Amino acid sequence: MQTTLIASLCGLLGDAHVLQDGDLSAWEVDWRKRYRGKALAVVRPSSTEQVAQVVKLCAAQGVSIVPQGGNTGLVGGGVPNASGTQVVLSLQRMNRVRAIDADNLTMTVDAGCVLHAVQEAARAAGFWFPLSLAAEGSCTIGGNLATNAGGTQVLRFGNARDLCLGLEVVTPHGEVWHGLSGLRKDNTGYDLRHLMIGSEGTLGIITGATLKLAPQPAASMTAMATCADLPACVRLLSLARQRLGDTLTGFEVMNDVSLALVAQHMPQLRQPLPAAPWSVLLELSDQQSAEHARTQFEALLEAALEQQVIDDAAVAESVAQSRTMWHLRESIPLAQAEEGLNIKHDVSLPVSRIAAFCAAAQAQLTREVPGSRLVNFGHLGDGNLHFNVQAPSGSDAAAFLKREESRVNTIVYDCVGAHGGSISAEHGVGALKVGELAARKDATALSMMRAVKAALDPQGLMNPGRVIQIL
Amino acid sequence: MQTTLIASLCGLLGDAHVLQDGDLSAWEVDWRKRYRGKALAVVRPSSTEQVAQVVKLCAAQGVSIVPQGGNTGLVGGGVPNASGTQVVLSLQRMNRVRAIDADNLTMTVDAGCVLHAVQEAARAAGFWFPLSLAAEGSCTIGGNLATNAGGTQVLRFGNARDLCLGLEVVTPHGEVWHGLSGLRKDNTGYDLRHLMIGSEGTLGIITGATLKLAPQPAASMTAMATCADLPACVRLLSLARQRLGDTLTGFEVMNDVSLALVAQHMPQLRQPLPAAPWSVLLELSDQQSAEHARTQFEALLEAALEQQVIDDAAVAESVAQSRTMWHLRESIPLAQAEEGLNIKHDVSLPVSRIAAFCAAAQAQLTREVPGSRLVNFGHLGDGNLHFNVQAPSGSDAAAFLKREESRVNTIVYDCVGAHGGSISAEHGVGALKVGELAARKDATALSMMRAVKAALDPQGLMNPGRVIQIL
Repeated sequence: MQTTLIASLCGLLGDAHVLQDGDLSAWEVDWRKRYRGKALAVVRPSSTEQVAQVVKLCAAQGVSIVPQGGNTGLVGGGVPNASGTQVVLSLQRMNRVRAIDADNLTMTVDAGCVLHAVQEAARAAGFWFPLSLAAEGSCTIGGNLATNAGGTQVLRFGNARDLCLGLEVVTPHGEVWHGLSGLRKDNTGYDLRHLMIGSEGTLGIITGATLKLAPQPAASMTAMATCADLPACVRLLSLARQRLGDTLTGFEVMNDVSLALVAQHMPQLRQPLPAAPWSVLLELSDQQSAEHARTQFEALLEAALEQQVIDDAAVAESVAQSRTMWHLRESIPLAQAEEGLNIKHDVSLPVSRIAAFCAAAQAQLTREVPGSRLVNFGHLGDGNLHFNVQAPSGSDAAAFLKREESRVNTIVYDCVGAHGGSISAEHGVGALKVGELAARKDATALSMMRAVKAALDPQGLMNPGRVIQIL
Repeated sequence: MQTTLIASLCGLLGDAHVLQDGDLSAWEVDWRKRYRGKALAVVRPSSTEQVAQVVKLCAAQGVSIVPQGGNTGLVGGGVPNASGTQVVLSLQRMNRVRAIDADNLTMTVDAGCVLHAVQEAARAAGFWFPLSLAAEGSCTIGGNLATNAGGTQVLRFGNARDLCLGLEVVTPHGEVWHGLSGLRKDNTGYDLRHLMIGSEGTLGIITGATLKLAPQPAASMTAMATCADLPACVRLLSLARQRLGDTLTGFEVMNDVSLALVAQHMPQLRQPLPAAPWSVLLELSDQQSAEHARTQFEALLEAALEQQVIDDAAVAESVAQSRTMWHLRESIPLAQAEEGLNIKHDVSLPVSRIAAFCAAAQAQLTREVPGSRLVNFGHLGDGNLHFNVQAPSGSDAAAFLKREESRVNTIVYDCVGAHGGSISAEHGVGALKVGELAARKDATALSMMRAVKAALDPQGLMNPGRVIQIL
């Protein structure tokens, strides 16, 4: 049976694109190395038609498929399980920019295009594709859409779904939905695009997308400021939104522990302001001029100083200084890894409840998990925190995780629930949170999700066991 | 059977809120008076729990439900059919603003709130709820979401779905999905919110919503300009986007026939510029100051004049002048009605293909339907045109429609399809376009829609016959 399938796949794609032997860890092991699977085969189709044929061949044999982009996911949604019975379908060979439509401000790309290549193609045509995140050098746009990626520009441009106008999708039956539309308004039935986006490959395989472009800003400017506490950061956000409107494109917060870890492990990175309980990174993208951007930024920061919302501030004087500020922010996960194993939480809250959530969760962690260190940073403008917990200084981190991870998760997720938040803001559910989701999500929503999954994928062959548990 | 149901409904809601006798035309006849139905009863629950109970009672008897907001829809999606067997469920008594969260920039409202009341509540709290359309004095926010309404601010703020963060929905089983979230990032499974929005009451009943608010702009400014042709309007749009960025919040076009009809039927409205092939209305919303807005606007219009993109321009010097400009634009449908019966098309195209579409469709209409007059206006920034056809001057409009409507629709919709467009941009499908949709939409998409409908509404009792035909 499986021999027949492999032979058919080789006939379709060529032997070179049906991988079975040798080191397949690039496809079988996830980026964080927490999930180590075994694939029946890794297949690498080069066209939508080939993807459709692969799905039909697998469906005929009842073999399940794990779609994979750049394999940079953080929740184990893109690697096979350990059974050796799943086919990994890699989109990486589908990497063409199909078209750029300047008057319509859109571009149409294959799903396997690396995000950075999409950004560069937009830039070369004189536009800005604003989706931006740490893995952009290797993640694919198809994976970004399948997981509805977030990143640093969500405040202004929304999540990946908000940057996508149309999709091409291979369904679990191996049919192709030709939904590549460059339309900003289209009320012809159910929004299948938004249903597919964020479904993590469990309802079909995204093979192409039409994306929104933005005009390149005339000037971008970065600043950092320090605040005494988190409520002050929230006040600064309100003030910045009121004064800067949509030119405010970034608003990131970092607690003292986060920047102290960066100072310890990346001493070469200059920190522009003295240590403080909270640091804020602001980005402004101005359509007018660098001079206008600076005037606006300085007026905001002066007002914030006067109103005692912030204690100190520094505006980047050059592109290099601006990059250093962003580098500080982006180095936190790496500094955490250098410090040792840690427990990550990608949570979101209403902005109005973030301070209360943090106070409550931190107090409980301090009480119940003594010595644990909270590395708290994230996209405050979107209500998204990376509320990570590091083992006590100098302790055996592996032993700490083994002993405390489940309890820490329960404390954090219970507190998220009590404050109206989400246990997965931008990383998705994958395999990591499928149990938590089943336990915590609204029961009616779960049964609607199960009904949709069963309706669109009746054989249950698309990335099974991820996102939703079928009862 | 039906007697039992009515008795149960009266027991639940009180006799005063189960209407069966007298003139029920306010609920049974649509706004354009093209659909005249007969309801088994009109029920008016006052709470989510009552809505759920009504659905359960109807489902137990196999009675279908037509949810209704302000009954301002243009496609016959909110009125019952003529069978006398359907229950109209009016949300109008559910009209509370539940909460406003200033720090989170959100408000939570009952589905039956009138859009204008939502705008006013936002304004009173110091914010801006930017969804705006002609029917705002009587349409409800639930209806806006059920149909994914568009309007004049889509260019900057998106359609109704883009202004909604969370929903409360009663499912076809009478269960309540408590999805009222104020989160900007939430990747916990399939996006049921976007699935419900735009489903026109065929998958469930929206009973509440959490909406996004924007800061009030420091200044709004309106201008009109004239262009020699449609490609020049598209060039002006590109130029305006590049220079104004997100402060450009409105970009409406009107052809000469549209404004001539307004001049004829509303002679009291002053037209600020001499007649021209195309007129453009631009709106700018500035976070900084009125002075800054004016400088930006004047610089744009001067550049457009220099580059011969526009022939003439006028910036409104007062709120009254600004209102007059908008009034001109908004009076077109009324002037059309004064002129007589007409054929409406709410279509969208990629902005880059609008000029080619208009040229091709108009040439074919001129050739095949001699004397027909094209009233062409709309939201160019979103690619959305109201491409309406008026009977020849002085002819019998009713006879014209009877003779030509079907042929005119075929010409226009074929041409829309050939240019990558949509036959319903913002008005939805309802009963009016359900056949066109079945004939024209991608076959795979249609079968996915049918599978979703059957999965979530297995009895087929939610607004049957609208949006999707069950085979």
